[in-house]
Amino acid sequence: MAASADKNLEDLFLDTLKDIYYAEKKITKALPKMAKAASSSELATAFENHLVETQGQVDRLEQVFDLLGKPHRGKTCPAIDGILEEGSEMMEEYKGASALDAALVSAAQAVEHYEIVRYGTLCTWAEELGMTDVKTLLKATLAEEENADELLSGLATGGINTQALKAAA
Amino acid sequence: MAASADKNLEDLFLDTLKDIYYAEKKITKALPKMAKAASSSELATAFENHLVETQGQVDRLEQVFDLLGKPHRGKTCPAIDGILEEGSEMMEEYKGASALDAALVSAAQAVEHYEIVRYGTLCTWAEELGMTDVKTLLKATLAEEENADELLSGLATGGINTQALKAAA
Repeated sequence: MAASADKNLEDLFLDTLKDIYYAEKKITKALPKMAKAASSSELATAFENHLVETQGQVDRLEQVFDLLGKPHRGKTCPAIDGILEEGSEMMEEYKGASALDAALVSAAQAVEHYEIVRYGTLCTWAEELGMTDVKTLLKATLAEEENADELLSGLATGGINTQALKAAA
Repeated sequence: MAASADKNLEDLFLDTLKDIYYAEKKITKALPKMAKAASSSELATAFENHLVETQGQVDRLEQVFDLLGKPHRGKTCPAIDGILEEGSEMMEEYKGASALDAALVSAAQAVEHYEIVRYGTLCTWAEELGMTDVKTLLKATLAEEENADELLSGLATGGINTQALKAAA
């Protein structure tokens, strides 16, 4: 096979970096809508705080592109498009419903897990490619995503699910 | 608001159950293609074994529908459609490439994490809705998905990434 046709781990790393860069930018557009839709002010605040965090994650990805000497360029990511589309549908279907906030948390956790798996993989690859500084940046974001996911679980079990449940009785 | 317009935690549970039922069925169609595409026989076997496991998970979901007295009915899940579409694109882009197997593992782990987040949420809701038998079934699947994810990580760091890396040198 011609070397030009081959794609190695470095190519895969860069493709995945572009994928998550596109995803993070889409997420910064979705979070304000989710914050606006939330009926619990605590949940709305969590989404607003995560928006600020996500903007920092976009900056971190741009630092990674810089370290690699590559342009800040995203690549359409059908996965996040699908996950966010499903979230929008749920927001529409549960508008005004007792379980709206529970649905919003569920949608947000699907987003978080997508990010967790991608950043987890990128961290492993960065390690194997000997990109120490890149790994440090990605690991910081991974920790934030894991933290955001736990925070959402805490909000769900700390009142949001009970709220949706009470109405079910 | 009219009660008929309201959607509570039970409705959300059922909607999410339909979502993951659709997803699992789509995954049973994707796994044979991934097994066929894999260049490592160990990875191909892992996909084949997970196909058998996934068919069991479909059965378990049908048991859950039965326990709830509901028909076995899926609901289009744009999230899994997007995740699998992205996986297909990667398979095409990395066909014959050194990093093909690393790309396949990455795509499969995105699928696993989608399932992990959905089953995790469903288990929490089942607990809160007092559905003990349903929770037991869903928890068994959740454990399998977490195990499949760890197995894939092990295959990646146990040789697949090094293979893709060597070619990068």
